[in-house]
Amino acid sequence: MYKLITHNRHKYTEMKKIIPELEMVDMEYPELQADTLEEVVDFAINYLRDKIDGNFIIDDSGLFIEALNGFPGVYSAYVHKTIGNRGILKLMDGVENRRAYFKTVIGLNIDGYAYKLIGICHGNIAPRERGNNGFGYDPIFIPMGFEKTFAELSIEEKNRISHRGKAMRKLEAFIVKFR
Amino acid sequence: MYKLITHNRHKYTEMKKIIPELEMVDMEYPELQADTLEEVVDFAINYLRDKIDGNFIIDDSGLFIEALNGFPGVYSAYVHKTIGNRGILKLMDGVENRRAYFKTVIGLNIDGYAYKLIGICHGNIAPRERGNNGFGYDPIFIPMGFEKTFAELSIEEKNRISHRGKAMRKLEAFIVKFR
Repeated sequence: MYKLITHNRHKYTEMKKIIPELEMVDMEYPELQADTLEEVVDFAINYLRDKIDGNFIIDDSGLFIEALNGFPGVYSAYVHKTIGNRGILKLMDGVENRRAYFKTVIGLNIDGYAYKLIGICHGNIAPRERGNNGFGYDPIFIPMGFEKTFAELSIEEKNRISHRGKAMRKLEAFIVKFR
Repeated sequence: MYKLITHNRHKYTEMKKIIPELEMVDMEYPELQADTLEEVVDFAINYLRDKIDGNFIIDDSGLFIEALNGFPGVYSAYVHKTIGNRGILKLMDGVENRRAYFKTVIGLNIDGYAYKLIGICHGNIAPRERGNNGFGYDPIFIPMGFEKTFAELSIEEKNRISHRGKAMRKLEAFIVKFR
């Protein structure tokens, strides 16, 4: 049994498909201001260790844009809530280098030890918003080797190549050893 | 004697003019991801209490732009490091409502009790960067009732009206009771 610590039921449903022995725990934990997702996850795991009984999982994701020095990065959720995709497109207006990557860090605390599973998806910032699937920055992110944005792909297509999909499959392969 | 916990020598220099019995301690502490500066300060004080001997002061400041839903807000330092003043000006390009405010929350831990002192300075985002004084967003912030940006004012002029100056004078008035 693994406890997924999240407020996001959608995330839970998605992960439950890959890890059946998952249970959702809707609980607050401190997220650090830091330059990397890894630091955020490390800090949260340390905090949660004393508070959660048994094995647990957390995750944190971000969009890192090369020409913007990694912005919005660790603060992707906040930036999306405030300036949104239109803000990002405005910042990228006239910028030639549109390279960006999505990254997910899954933190796993199992039998008292902590591990991190990482998934990255490289791509480019689209010239304009396209597509209605997914959420967040999906309408402005075109994964490498595709013409479509994440928001124009089906959930299954997206999961096959996405940062979170990759990290979840690493998690699945890792957890098997503990079964 | 009060220990100011900061990496920022500019901040120390500004504060020392108002609180002479100040000593700078360059030490790392966790800053929380939160919607308000108050939450960040509360969390940090709680963390530092066990680690710092004696009275200490921390502060956190942010620039909150109305048309950008409060962005960059609590993450002002990170946003400045990544997209900078030019990024903010680009986001504000063609935006009519240029209202913004700077806010400082000072956290004071004195004789084992924690207090917060708050200062706010209202103003507008300048059409372009001007001035060489100060730091951070100072070249793009025009305080209410002025024609100049913070970066075009002397440190004394800025302290008289700034968010940090206001919070510092509240702190000064507060500290007097403990002398």
